[in-house]
Amino acid sequence: MSELVEGPGLLDRALRRVTAMWRDVAGGEPVADFAEQMRACLAGKGGEVSARGRAAGLAQAYLGLDAEGRSAFLRTLAAFDSDMEAARAACAQVAEAATPVDRAVAKARLRRTLEPPRLRLLTQFTGIPDGMKFLVDLRGELLTLTKGDAMLQALEADLRGLLASWFDLGFLELRRVDWSSPANLLEKLVGYEAVHRIRGWRDLKNRLDSDRRCYAFFHPRMPDEPLIFVEVALVRGMADSVQRLLDEKAPVQNPNEADTAIFYSINNCQRGLDGISFGNFLIKRVVTLLSAEFRNLKTFATLSPMPGFRGWLEEKLAAGDAVLLSEEEAVPIRLALGEPAPAGEAPVAALARALERRGWARQEALAKLVEPILIRAAARYLLAESSGRGKRLRDPVGHFHLSNGARVERLNWRGDTSEKGYREAYALMVNYQYDPAKIEEYHEDYAGEGKRAAAAPIRKLAKGFL
Amino acid sequence: MSELVEGPGLLDRALRRVTAMWRDVAGGEPVADFAEQMRACLAGKGGEVSARGRAAGLAQAYLGLDAEGRSAFLRTLAAFDSDMEAARAACAQVAEAATPVDRAVAKARLRRTLEPPRLRLLTQFTGIPDGMKFLVDLRGELLTLTKGDAMLQALEADLRGLLASWFDLGFLELRRVDWSSPANLLEKLVGYEAVHRIRGWRDLKNRLDSDRRCYAFFHPRMPDEPLIFVEVALVRGMADSVQRLLDEKAPVQNPNEADTAIFYSINNCQRGLDGISFGNFLIKRVVTLLSAEFRNLKTFATLSPMPGFRGWLEEKLAAGDAVLLSEEEAVPIRLALGEPAPAGEAPVAALARALERRGWARQEALAKLVEPILIRAAARYLLAESSGRGKRLRDPVGHFHLSNGARVERLNWRGDTSEKGYREAYALMVNYQYDPAKIEEYHEDYAGEGKRAAAAPIRKLAKGFL
Amino acid sequence: MSELVEGPGLLDRALRRVTAMWRDVAGGEPVADFAEQMRACLAGKGGEVSARGRAAGLAQAYLGLDAEGRSAFLRTLAAFDSDMEAARAACAQVAEAATPVDRAVAKARLRRTLEPPRLRLLTQFTGIPDGMKFLVDLRGELLTLTKGDAMLQALEADLRGLLASWFDLGFLELRRVDWSSPANLLEKLVGYEAVHRIRGWRDLKNRLDSDRRCYAFFHPRMPDEPLIFVEVALVRGMADSVQRLLDEKAPVQNPNEADTAIFYSINNCQRGLDGISFGNFLIKRVVTLLSAEFRNLKTFATLSPMPGFRGWLEEKLAAGDAVLLSEEEAVPIRLALGEPAPAGEAPVAALARALERRGWARQEALAKLVEPILIRAAARYLLAESSGRGKRLRDPVGHFHLSNGARVERLNWRGDTSEKGYREAYALMVNYQYDPAKIEEYHEDYAGEGKRAAAAPIRKLAKGFL
Amino acid sequence: MSELVEGPGLLDRALRRVTAMWRDVAGGEPVADFAEQMRACLAGKGGEVSARGRAAGLAQAYLGLDAEGRSAFLRTLAAFDSDMEAARAACAQVAEAATPVDRAVAKARLRRTLEPPRLRLLTQFTGIPDGMKFLVDLRGELLTLTKGDAMLQALEADLRGLLASWFDLGFLELRRVDWSSPANLLEKLVGYEAVHRIRGWRDLKNRLDSDRRCYAFFHPRMPDEPLIFVEVALVRGMADSVQRLLDEKAPVQNPNEADTAIFYSINNCQRGLDGISFGNFLIKRVVTLLSAEFRNLKTFATLSPMPGFRGWLEEKLAAGDAVLLSEEEAVPIRLALGEPAPAGEAPVAALARALERRGWARQEALAKLVEPILIRAAARYLLAESSGRGKRLRDPVGHFHLSNGARVERLNWRGDTSEKGYREAYALMVNYQYDPAKIEEYHEDYAGEGKRAAAAPIRKLAKGFL
Repeated sequence: MSELVEGPGLLDRALRRVTAMWRDVAGGEPVADFAEQMRACLAGKGGEVSARGRAAGLAQAYLGLDAEGRSAFLRTLAAFDSDMEAARAACAQVAEAATPVDRAVAKARLRRTLEPPRLRLLTQFTGIPDGMKFLVDLRGELLTLTKGDAMLQALEADLRGLLASWFDLGFLELRRVDWSSPANLLEKLVGYEAVHRIRGWRDLKNRLDSDRRCYAFFHPRMPDEPLIFVEVALVRGMADSVQRLLDEKAPVQNPNEADTAIFYSINNCQRGLDGISFGNFLIKRVVTLLSAEFRNLKTFATLSPMPGFRGWLEEKLAAGDAVLLSEEEAVPIRLALGEPAPAGEAPVAALARALERRGWARQEALAKLVEPILIRAAARYLLAESSGRGKRLRDPVGHFHLSNGARVERLNWRGDTSEKGYREAYALMVNYQYDPAKIEEYHEDYAGEGKRAAAAPIRKLAKGFL
Repeated sequence: MSELVEGPGLLDRALRRVTAMWRDVAGGEPVADFAEQMRACLAGKGGEVSARGRAAGLAQAYLGLDAEGRSAFLRTLAAFDSDMEAARAACAQVAEAATPVDRAVAKARLRRTLEPPRLRLLTQFTGIPDGMKFLVDLRGELLTLTKGDAMLQALEADLRGLLASWFDLGFLELRRVDWSSPANLLEKLVGYEAVHRIRGWRDLKNRLDSDRRCYAFFHPRMPDEPLIFVEVALVRGMADSVQRLLDEKAPVQNPNEADTAIFYSINNCQRGLDGISFGNFLIKRVVTLLSAEFRNLKTFATLSPMPGFRGWLEEKLAAGDAVLLSEEEAVPIRLALGEPAPAGEAPVAALARALERRGWARQEALAKLVEPILIRAAARYLLAESSGRGKRLRDPVGHFHLSNGARVERLNWRGDTSEKGYREAYALMVNYQYDPAKIEEYHEDYAGEGKRAAAAPIRKLAKGFL
Repeated sequence: MSELVEGPGLLDRALRRVTAMWRDVAGGEPVADFAEQMRACLAGKGGEVSARGRAAGLAQAYLGLDAEGRSAFLRTLAAFDSDMEAARAACAQVAEAATPVDRAVAKARLRRTLEPPRLRLLTQFTGIPDGMKFLVDLRGELLTLTKGDAMLQALEADLRGLLASWFDLGFLELRRVDWSSPANLLEKLVGYEAVHRIRGWRDLKNRLDSDRRCYAFFHPRMPDEPLIFVEVALVRGMADSVQRLLDEKAPVQNPNEADTAIFYSINNCQRGLDGISFGNFLIKRVVTLLSAEFRNLKTFATLSPMPGFRGWLEEKLAAGDAVLLSEEEAVPIRLALGEPAPAGEAPVAALARALERRGWARQEALAKLVEPILIRAAARYLLAESSGRGKRLRDPVGHFHLSNGARVERLNWRGDTSEKGYREAYALMVNYQYDPAKIEEYHEDYAGEGKRAAAAPIRKLAKGFL
Repeated sequence: MSELVEGPGLLDRALRRVTAMWRDVAGGEPVADFAEQMRACLAGKGGEVSARGRAAGLAQAYLGLDAEGRSAFLRTLAAFDSDMEAARAACAQVAEAATPVDRAVAKARLRRTLEPPRLRLLTQFTGIPDGMKFLVDLRGELLTLTKGDAMLQALEADLRGLLASWFDLGFLELRRVDWSSPANLLEKLVGYEAVHRIRGWRDLKNRLDSDRRCYAFFHPRMPDEPLIFVEVALVRGMADSVQRLLDEKAPVQNPNEADTAIFYSINNCQRGLDGISFGNFLIKRVVTLLSAEFRNLKTFATLSPMPGFRGWLEEKLAAGDAVLLSEEEAVPIRLALGEPAPAGEAPVAALARALERRGWARQEALAKLVEPILIRAAARYLLAESSGRGKRLRDPVGHFHLSNGARVERLNWRGDTSEKGYREAYALMVNYQYDPAKIEEYHEDYAGEGKRAAAAPIRKLAKGFL
């Protein structure tokens, strides 16, 4: 597969090629003074159409720059800020406004005064071919540069605002992707899939078979670039193992007999659209579509990773968290480990030793003992642990689904037995269930008081921590 | 034809129908308290997807309201302004910021503080079917209501900002319209054509024949609605009469032999996009397209009305402007009128009498005498007269083309002999020429010092006034 | 409207234009010797691709000919027949073949021997642009020339065979036509509608409204030319008046509430496809489509003219057919006529006089008396009268629908009150009903024994004649 | 790759699946008596539409049969032949016809009489979904069964006739295939490529890069199935090595700088269209297209295998053909072989020994000596050797290109160093050049007197044999 995935340097090379072409056109002359060019764009010299042409030249010049040059370019652009004196004067008018209407008018004027010229420049880039992709990628680069640089942060915030407006949910197009989709689009999916890596065209074709569905959002100005996509399996009963779902040798099911739709992978594709959220909307649109197409579908759920679980548990183990397991539970584990336990070892240390043991998961006797302890810890992790920010669920995937109105439905032992599955969560996976009748209520509960919805068995496992 | 053009009440009726449907769905309950609904939309209760559903409900409720109800609705919406206290505090931070970077950061924060919540509400309307058309029409209505209402003006300005961003030139799609276009689109053109009314399908078909071209801009989210369109005739030599251009019985020319493209009608279609300008861009895109398709084209020009000429001339006549014609010119006119002239009549009064005479234009002897005087006056009107606003050309069509970089090329006697042609400009029409090599220069001259480009003969006619 | 319908000379003019162009290309040289050109095409001189080019030249030459020239051309073409000697020899082999297999082989060889070279030439015309339309129109012309010319008949039969193969039902594309269809296609429908003339674009738009459906068959190689189309109204209850159906001022109905689909016009568009039947297939495809889209539809029926009724009745009247009405029925008619009846007038003569009376139909008292007599006669006409060819229904429209498996359902007084309606059938119209469950049975009954299906009341009216 | 290429059993499996579905629908009942079903189809019982339904049932039944069942089915079908008695009578009428016109009419009647009913049945299969593909595949199977079976041969000939008519050049659609084509289409190309096997998606993508072109013909009724496709490389100078052309690591060339288009692979995709030729037409269409797109292209040529060369040469070597090389040429070869030559060895035996030596081609000294001898032999093979059938070039690829109007341009040592390349032609490849100005002449020369066009150096090498 690796030969097909486009390496990180590809965009760069494409850009260099475009620039080479542009240099040919322009006669080899580099754009000497970016600030002056930008000023000319803003002045609209020669009319708006000419300004657009000039903006295209700037964009192409940018693409031809190396990292340092780009950084300088962006700082130059960021410096086109609103006028300070005008802002002060408009602020004064707000302060002096006597009536509510006067205040409203003064505020509106102040807001206009504060509009930085760089905003207009960014907008002018839309006119170039693939201009929207250019701006999305520009923000992608900005996000890697802003750290500690307040001016670049301001530029990035402006660009984010523009993109949020242009990529509003109302403008997105939902398209199904299947084996009759263009090969270059499928190749992009291969590159963008980050949850469960696609190992080749055979794996890909299997994920697009008749008992599978894949949907993606597109923007009318970036028609060949998926923004986000979701992979769904139509199955009977709740799926508990991603390896079974992705088994290319498994027989194709009749999708009309499926009672459950499993959302097993959802991927954002554009770094430059970070923070502009489509996932929630995508899941609900797809639930609606699938409900209409397959009348037997009763259950909509995910099969999701729990990327922060192992990190959290290792913290707890290191801290000797006594609640993780009891002395009674530790005894058989020590036996199964077959090593003399250190004198006076705390129960939790036995668990730590077990999990450090190479290949513990394949050692069936040991794994059997560890399973209920990990499941219980995972329930606690999802229902009781919060990230620094208040009541927010510590696991990012869990937070995403609960804030969308899903509930924790089930924990699956050996749900993902890949190396990544063990590395992140000792191979555990979660089913989050979307019950159309409950989505609003669960969303409100979580968004408001931080209340986390979960099926009764999960709730019971985490009882002591709620 | 009149049966095909959709009357002014049509949108209204369509909206009422939609609302009736919505009322059925919602169980007959009107949306009682708009303010509360809007607050719920903004709070995002039940998640973003639910908020969109609520916005759709609001939109449909709006469509079901009568004029008064709509006005109340819009005022309620306008009241969702930014917070005054927060604005004051953020203003203070700007004032206190010590370094340039601090100032930039404080200004950015202030700008965010000033973003009125109603903006977010407007954006949420994009999610409904035909949401973009809804917002464009909403602004169309707002523009009729804002007079003297500062809050509605602020709302209108916000909406204008959103639409300007979404309808940026970079997002427009240029499409050719011809006789194989959908009938419902052609029917819309018939309704939107305001320069030279389309008298029926036969007239329309004639305008879409093989020696004609029609291009329109569309927006990806309003695919069935033209934003602006231009009608072009491919001819030999500069066209001097719109009646000849629109003659259905004239033989079809071979467009490959044409040396001149005449832009004889350009129409904005969406009232709600007033002030968001596409015409300049459209003309230049079409010039580029036609140049590529027809290698023999040398000249690109308009055949344009001069809508303010008669009004201006009548002012001058009433004021007894002596410069309009000399005593020598008046003598034969008096003779041709065949009436005894009032004693001591000023020369200009003879002209006034001639133009008041019913059917003067068909009285060949009289018309011959009046022709050079009107042509000279028109040259002066275009090159020397300004509107209140400084150096701006008084005629709006003239201002549009000169600010796009065209020049006044020729004046055409009996260019438009329709009732409208006489009413606006004594049947005179203007050719404005677009010379690709000069567009930037002319634009700069006019935009800068207000210098107006014109062909030498026109310039000569207006010499005394420059 | 008339300005839009393309007159009979249009194709001709188009062809002349094409030929003019071709003459330019070919340097003004007419194709002197068609026979030689045809021989070269058949010899494949220069390879198949060159042969195709030569065929295109021949086609264009043909288009440039006048009527006489075309006739000569076609006779030349028809003369490329199979070889007589070879045919004789192959016949002999058939005669001599001893075993069944030998006979089969000999017959196959004979058939190949009999393939006339002109067939290959006709096939080569497919390669030119619009070649399929060329061949269809060629047959259209041939049909007007074959009378009494056995060679042209043979050519026509060959072409018919080719077209029947290429226009097999399996290759047709069904497309819905509506108000968003291309104007040039709609214009063609206006030209091709022969049952109920379309009076203009307003009439046309009314026929494409949301409570109407229009479907047409197309061929992939003639994508802009409809082959046949049907117009359907979705109504409540069986329609009894075409004027009510076509009333532009009638309110639009909700098609989802319709229980009946009325096929009120079906038109073949291509003269050159005469005898290659699509109507039966079109009706059944549309019944299937509409059943799936509108669940409330229960009844599928036509509202059809009876083009031969008046002619037949006038024959009967002239012959003094005594069965048409009784003396008792004649008495009040004579009274209503208000004229003294000729002495000893036969009852049938009273009817004849009534129908000859100008404006009898608007004379309500008279019309009331005539109505049951005409209805009864029409029932007899449909159920008991045959054309020369055995058991075949005399009325061609009736024959078409009964052979498709429909039944005579109802007769409608004043069903078509247009001048044409009176001229053809004293304004009577017929509903033929398609009952999916009975179509096969009715078809078999009619195709086999000539049994005609009809609703009980109709059957009762015609009782004496069955 | 092997995982992607669909194995030979796939169609079969698909068919079985369809049949299973059909059996479900039909309630498990197999179509018992095919002959009866066929008779019902022909009788048109229940109307044409019902007949089509019955034909679909037959088609699906066929798909469910095993090899023996299919063979029986086809024999049953073949038996629906024309009537012998009627044929005899019509033959007699031909014999008796006195005038030319009578003879023509009688022949036409005879031809109609000879039309076997099975033809009509075959046509009815077009109405089923994918009916065209069904018929093409049916012929594909027939071709494997006809050997020695005259009835099946007759059926096959009928089907061939139908397909030749439906797949006439005039109906084909040329489409470009590139990396944005549907993945399922690309997957088919991988399966159909037989000249230079596609080793995987990376190889495929390389063949669709910006300096490559791939075109295929499609039929409107088989839109997802390529009929034939050609792969072209745009290069500078005549290509001499297929390995270099297919090298994935070679840099992409700028196609606008290319002066030569190399057709390096052309593949027929449908076994069932054997003998219905598209290749000639495809090459010429592509030459036209490329000429228009790339103005710098001067040369159009192939890089072709010579599949019969080695077989022919081995025959000559075995026969001790003394002309292949002289004693002077044999001496250094014997030395290079490093073995004592058998006493009195003929020169040609030295060559035989060299070519039998394992790895001779990598033994540079030896290869150098062998090269001119093989090249000379190849020139003779192409220009002087004929197949059994008269003047026809012995090599099938050479025959194909020369009959299309190409000429032998160059022979390439180590043109295809794959195992297949050595096996077929000791790694030699040929460039056949298509010179648009000469195509007709060369075609005529070859088709007429069998004259073979070749570049002067090739001609010189073969001089002794011409």
